[in-house]
Amino acid sequence: MLHTFIALVDNKPGVLTRIASLFRRLNINIASLTVGETEREEVSRMTIVCDAPDNAAHRIRASLYKLEITRDVDEVGRSEAVIRELALIKVEAGPPASSSSSRTHLFELAEVFRARIVDLAPESLMLEMTGSSSKIEGLIQVLMESGYKILEVSRTGRMAMRRGKHTSRVMKALGSKDHQGDSPLDPDALPPSERIPNQFAEHDA
Amino acid sequence: MLHTFIALVDNKPGVLTRIASLFRRLNINIASLTVGETEREEVSRMTIVCDAPDNAAHRIRASLYKLEITRDVDEVGRSEAVIRELALIKVEAGPPASSSSSRTHLFELAEVFRARIVDLAPESLMLEMTGSSSKIEGLIQVLMESGYKILEVSRTGRMAMRRGKHTSRVMKALGSKDHQGDSPLDPDALPPSERIPNQFAEHDA
Repeated sequence: MLHTFIALVDNKPGVLTRIASLFRRLNINIASLTVGETEREEVSRMTIVCDAPDNAAHRIRASLYKLEITRDVDEVGRSEAVIRELALIKVEAGPPASSSSSRTHLFELAEVFRARIVDLAPESLMLEMTGSSSKIEGLIQVLMESGYKILEVSRTGRMAMRRGKHTSRVMKALGSKDHQGDSPLDPDALPPSERIPNQFAEHDA
Repeated sequence: MLHTFIALVDNKPGVLTRIASLFRRLNINIASLTVGETEREEVSRMTIVCDAPDNAAHRIRASLYKLEITRDVDEVGRSEAVIRELALIKVEAGPPASSSSSRTHLFELAEVFRARIVDLAPESLMLEMTGSSSKIEGLIQVLMESGYKILEVSRTGRMAMRRGKHTSRVMKALGSKDHQGDSPLDPDALPPSERIPNQFAEHDA
């Protein structure tokens, strides 16, 4: 089962080594990891996706907490968080003279998948796309099935952020089983209100 | 000086530990790192951005090559590659009744920065944005200067991919000093052609 952890850690050398070797010690394979800056300079934020048994989540979380570089750890489920990934895909596409139809088709595909074309060379074309992993895999599959030659694929791995404070009714509609009102990452959280349902839950569909 | 490396490595447990401890040994701080899947299942692709002296680049590249998990290493400059980052930004924004103007303003800002709104809760709003690091910092700065309270920021770190085969004239226009025609990551590279200039170089401007 895939677990997604958000960890706030000190932004200093050696932190990545500590986290990576912790997972090595626990004998758990990291499926994807991103590290990036946050709103505070001294803090880095990691999203770690790992494949571990159901009952291992608590142990991983506790082990992460124990490291003195860790400031906070949160585990998020698919429904409580926005989970996004960025991909760059380079596709072979000849110059207009020889195969204009394939380029036109690629532009159409990009529009359907809300991908952006970020580089256009004589013999290739680069697409940038954000979305859930399955959406990115969908685009790659369509490209392959349409007979395009994929030259390079680069993906950032999943990044997660807890949704804002929704009411229990909205969370239920989003498919959450056990929504906790208080996110440990959001100390200034505001009281929930029943006013606005989330209209963006199916953004990816 | 910031160096950007693209490394193709085996997709197996322990690889991240090896890479992280290599940089620890070289005493070089990793500014950002992303690991993700590629077009081949057995290969992961890392983009490593590190802050090191000018003359250290060759040493880092050689050290990475020496690890038996490494399949290929490439160093890319800013002009030869598309460098992108994904950010999720959660901003405090009250319900329409109390402060509709601030929400409208946020929607306008999102449009200008080509950001997408991916979650809308009673008290907050989440923006998703891709672009160069400076563009993302630009949005964060505008949000802060406009008096918005930023609740959470999460960034993937930079991901790089070499541009397609452009002619030397185009590469010069893009600001490249020493464009090498052959990218080691692109073995099926096609011969350059003088036909189409790159119209997307200033995409970020």
